[in-house]
Amino acid sequence: MVKIGIIGGSGYTGVELLRLLLPRTDLHVSFISSRANAGTRVDALFPNLRGFTDLNFADPDDVAGSDCDLVFFATPNGTAMQQAPALLGRGVKVVDLSADFRIKDVAVWEKWYGMSHASAPWIEKAAYGLPEINRTQITDAQLVANPGCYPTTVQLGFMPLLENDLIHADSLIADAKSGVTGAGRGANVGTLLAEAGDNFKAYGVAGHRHLPEIEQGLSDMTNDAVSLTFTPHLLPMIRGIHSTLYARLKKPGDLQTLFEQRYKDEAFVDVLPAGVFPETRSVRGTNMCRLSVCQPQGRDTVVIMSVEDNLVKGAAGQAIQNMNLMLGLGETAGLIVPAMLP
Amino acid sequence: MVKIGIIGGSGYTGVELLRLLLPRTDLHVSFISSRANAGTRVDALFPNLRGFTDLNFADPDDVAGSDCDLVFFATPNGTAMQQAPALLGRGVKVVDLSADFRIKDVAVWEKWYGMSHASAPWIEKAAYGLPEINRTQITDAQLVANPGCYPTTVQLGFMPLLENDLIHADSLIADAKSGVTGAGRGANVGTLLAEAGDNFKAYGVAGHRHLPEIEQGLSDMTNDAVSLTFTPHLLPMIRGIHSTLYARLKKPGDLQTLFEQRYKDEAFVDVLPAGVFPETRSVRGTNMCRLSVCQPQGRDTVVIMSVEDNLVKGAAGQAIQNMNLMLGLGETAGLIVPAMLP
Amino acid sequence: MVKIGIIGGSGYTGVELLRLLLPRTDLHVSFISSRANAGTRVDALFPNLRGFTDLNFADPDDVAGSDCDLVFFATPNGTAMQQAPALLGRGVKVVDLSADFRIKDVAVWEKWYGMSHASAPWIEKAAYGLPEINRTQITDAQLVANPGCYPTTVQLGFMPLLENDLIHADSLIADAKSGVTGAGRGANVGTLLAEAGDNFKAYGVAGHRHLPEIEQGLSDMTNDAVSLTFTPHLLPMIRGIHSTLYARLKKPGDLQTLFEQRYKDEAFVDVLPAGVFPETRSVRGTNMCRLSVCQPQGRDTVVIMSVEDNLVKGAAGQAIQNMNLMLGLGETAGLIVPAMLP
Amino acid sequence: MVKIGIIGGSGYTGVELLRLLLPRTDLHVSFISSRANAGTRVDALFPNLRGFTDLNFADPDDVAGSDCDLVFFATPNGTAMQQAPALLGRGVKVVDLSADFRIKDVAVWEKWYGMSHASAPWIEKAAYGLPEINRTQITDAQLVANPGCYPTTVQLGFMPLLENDLIHADSLIADAKSGVTGAGRGANVGTLLAEAGDNFKAYGVAGHRHLPEIEQGLSDMTNDAVSLTFTPHLLPMIRGIHSTLYARLKKPGDLQTLFEQRYKDEAFVDVLPAGVFPETRSVRGTNMCRLSVCQPQGRDTVVIMSVEDNLVKGAAGQAIQNMNLMLGLGETAGLIVPAMLP
Repeated sequence: MVKIGIIGGSGYTGVELLRLLLPRTDLHVSFISSRANAGTRVDALFPNLRGFTDLNFADPDDVAGSDCDLVFFATPNGTAMQQAPALLGRGVKVVDLSADFRIKDVAVWEKWYGMSHASAPWIEKAAYGLPEINRTQITDAQLVANPGCYPTTVQLGFMPLLENDLIHADSLIADAKSGVTGAGRGANVGTLLAEAGDNFKAYGVAGHRHLPEIEQGLSDMTNDAVSLTFTPHLLPMIRGIHSTLYARLKKPGDLQTLFEQRYKDEAFVDVLPAGVFPETRSVRGTNMCRLSVCQPQGRDTVVIMSVEDNLVKGAAGQAIQNMNLMLGLGETAGLIVPAMLP
Repeated sequence: MVKIGIIGGSGYTGVELLRLLLPRTDLHVSFISSRANAGTRVDALFPNLRGFTDLNFADPDDVAGSDCDLVFFATPNGTAMQQAPALLGRGVKVVDLSADFRIKDVAVWEKWYGMSHASAPWIEKAAYGLPEINRTQITDAQLVANPGCYPTTVQLGFMPLLENDLIHADSLIADAKSGVTGAGRGANVGTLLAEAGDNFKAYGVAGHRHLPEIEQGLSDMTNDAVSLTFTPHLLPMIRGIHSTLYARLKKPGDLQTLFEQRYKDEAFVDVLPAGVFPETRSVRGTNMCRLSVCQPQGRDTVVIMSVEDNLVKGAAGQAIQNMNLMLGLGETAGLIVPAMLP
Repeated sequence: MVKIGIIGGSGYTGVELLRLLLPRTDLHVSFISSRANAGTRVDALFPNLRGFTDLNFADPDDVAGSDCDLVFFATPNGTAMQQAPALLGRGVKVVDLSADFRIKDVAVWEKWYGMSHASAPWIEKAAYGLPEINRTQITDAQLVANPGCYPTTVQLGFMPLLENDLIHADSLIADAKSGVTGAGRGANVGTLLAEAGDNFKAYGVAGHRHLPEIEQGLSDMTNDAVSLTFTPHLLPMIRGIHSTLYARLKKPGDLQTLFEQRYKDEAFVDVLPAGVFPETRSVRGTNMCRLSVCQPQGRDTVVIMSVEDNLVKGAAGQAIQNMNLMLGLGETAGLIVPAMLP
Repeated sequence: MVKIGIIGGSGYTGVELLRLLLPRTDLHVSFISSRANAGTRVDALFPNLRGFTDLNFADPDDVAGSDCDLVFFATPNGTAMQQAPALLGRGVKVVDLSADFRIKDVAVWEKWYGMSHASAPWIEKAAYGLPEINRTQITDAQLVANPGCYPTTVQLGFMPLLENDLIHADSLIADAKSGVTGAGRGANVGTLLAEAGDNFKAYGVAGHRHLPEIEQGLSDMTNDAVSLTFTPHLLPMIRGIHSTLYARLKKPGDLQTLFEQRYKDEAFVDVLPAGVFPETRSVRGTNMCRLSVCQPQGRDTVVIMSVEDNLVKGAAGQAIQNMNLMLGLGETAGLIVPAMLP
């Protein structure tokens, strides 16, 4: 049976990988690490997993001695670029959920992430893990850079319009709203319930690290120069991203049909009927991205709504979708469940 | 394949039955009704089910023409007692999620529910659907009265102590807290987000309908007279019940071992290690009841914590556990998943 | 002492008017009506007011017999246009918190509100109650049309830019997010905690009634044709609006100074320092609107953030600000308090 | 004018003291410290205070050079006992919001708080700051130990019953629920929105530090030996405590009248009418404690509900009530406002 490892398993993407992987019978999670929790039972930290695993958190350095076929890095930015190359060198496949291999231009990466890159050659070899545009490359890759949470919603939302040259690419707007798990499980005053609850605000307006990642992805869809105004906001809820996208149309078109055609064979993108708009809870806990497109008042501004669960299609679920492709397990394996509503 | 019907499918227990039943391959949901939504696609009302069903809501009267093997009643109190007997007469099995068949003493039922009972003979034949105490009866029953949400947590919490005559049964206290889905999906000022959010209060203090149901259940576990003070409270959250139970000990004992032994073969009752206390999110979306028992300061008051998801172990999940027993499908089929956390 | 009446006092704007007016010593609330609750003590419905009033809800028709100097209409749309003229005819001053007198073009009003207008002559005489642009008119008015909640944030946000001809008025965007009290206190499935909690979505995308009100207000600030894309969203919280506004700049300028100068004498508009962005809780319970302006990445799209408490500056507080002007009580009387944080 | 200082002003009790004190005209806040934020403008950390103060956070050591008449310690346990004596020695009055001077038995304090006490002589001189039982002592005190948040609700709830010898003091139960601000403003994984939101659990069951404080207070009300089972729980909300209290009656009595009589002259204790139960939001932001008493099913267990805002009557508000008494400013000055609802 396929053996899976997880480096950095004590954060939210770590526990989400476990929730989705542990019930599967076609693979086995044989290694999970957390430097801070080494030696602790996984289900002592995450009681929802009681009965599903007897694993203890290992020291991350012990991954070398494991014989995993594929390893997920669910680590802070800057870790996978240090540790993944050794695994890759031994033939292990890697899905990196951090930002280390997402941006092709090393100088851009180094500017936005504020450090030198430790394994530039692997950036080139890495496949960007958005299967809806990059499926073949992912299937053949040894290293996949799993997209950021915001970038997934924004790219899937603009894709049909940019691919068909229907909008002005130089004045795109993404007004994005995320639940607090996007900020991770670290102790942080700003995401305390007493601070982020019953409250709403924008953040990172001056420049969020997902901006260059999104602009890179959008640029691949068009010959025009792309310029995006990206405004992330913090929602007083746990999971979910809702991106409201705005663009000026170049010419009229049947946008509803366009979106439905573009995604008709995609298992994890659901275009809603005309006049119906997505809500974040409809995808909670699932790998689905739900989209709507409309033209309010028939004017020339098109509005796209794009929702996902930031920890699933925005992180762990998409990483597993990529793993499924890389290991030939069937792209949708373990990922088809209805959301819990309410 | 086994055919399943649901009467009253537009409420929270209805959609929860669908969420848990639709992905299964060993049965088929062939009928679902909602008088108010007859003719509407189910997934138009519940977009989380898009891709999992093409059913429309039917008129409840059309159940007669369906050929269901088992029918769930997810209807308000007073409906199943009217409509179930005809189905039962045709040999269909029934799990009633309402209160119609829970209380054996008709006079008590009529007093608390404020109406005459329409099918008293079936009360006697109905099995009370708490498998942890009533498994054999349920397996053989044609009609199962699914327990109330609060009663499940309170009975499972006091059971080991009462069965072993360790507590004074005449001064039991259940301080229970429930998320708002316990109040159903009806339009109601009291459960608006603007009213129930960021707020906490007791309700039904003078007398909640679950009191006689719980006292009936507890009385079956002991020869002593049972008297319970039951205080339900409304939590500013969607799902989950936390019952904090208090009793005075008659004599000392190893309560931790007692609880572990009592439930060691139960798939859906998890006794936590000594000193660990349950949280509602650890069972969210699952059929699990998690329990702790302790004696603060070593004094003679025992405290039991009991949590469940009120829509799963407290309603739809337990109903399916009962269905599994009645149809011989394996008690745990479709019900073993880790909770989503966070 | 000045005598104040409130018609329609059992909704959220009603109780908010009471919260702000009852502690004042320069006026007296002598009449409050609610057809549904006539005869009930006000503090039985709103226990936060225990100790502050002995009033009972009256029948709205009894207002005729009261001797109020000023009456607030906190009624659904369509009521004030029926009942206010009689009071106005007797010389009573009126602040209408509904939409009845906000839109100058009767045909536009009738299209968006779906009814015939019952007192068109009073539309012309009504002052639009946004003091920051209309102070003199309000001071002299007998009838004030209190602005909608969204329109207040959007108009205050775009005002300095439009007045100075700095942005293209034909491609404005307002991505607005509101807490659920904006939907009122009526029983409604969509605003149940179990539906609107832990969830986020857009609504009214095809056309929200505040669109024509906002476009009318913005048009008064510029000679250019105004076209706004207005997307309201529902936040999983009780109070607060955050409008994120986007416009394309015509020419460069010192926007920070522009905003600070425009509002330096306004008690209820606070322009934040450059680089600081407003959060809704910073104005919770207060009559303040907090604003930020910025140009992300130095590009030509300007982003304005505008927050208010939808029940205060977006409704009851602004109504009292208008009342203060109309009665010569001092514009800020009773409205200067710090927000409760956290 | 009276000059007030605050040591430890960057936590939730600090900002709450400021919210309540800054608008007052009968006193002046002339000093506020925060070691971590020294030099920062207070309103940069707490934007709700913009316009109400120009103060910067000072270094706490600089309090010596200020000429405050009264100083609040809003510091972690263990600080006031080190720093207050110097101020007291100079004649400054002190209200300590921490636990340093609450427990008369030094050995008990040292056991529960895990440190040696640095100023035992001042424990004896300190007045316990619960005005409803200790008004005279407080008025005359130089040092007041402000009660804990839970202890205030529990003592006010049991007081009329214990004073009249109506309940068995040896089997009291307090099932208490608190919003997360009770845990303070420190960065802490357990109170992140992603952890404490949409969740409910007990904590500190084995022994919470408020237990000895409560038992000390209850013991002062009766000649019987007091034994309390105290179970605190964490609510998924920001402010508010709801304590549900249980006791076995010794004899029958008119409990409603008893409670009403006991508190008829108290401005900050409100006994609700029979059959009405308090909700936390009815006291949000105010110094009120609301109480109900009842005997469910007419049995011999009495149930008392007691709610407060943990940051006001449970901390800053009660501290100001005490300050008002100590400085002769009128006990209710600055504390009579209606709660914000919803």
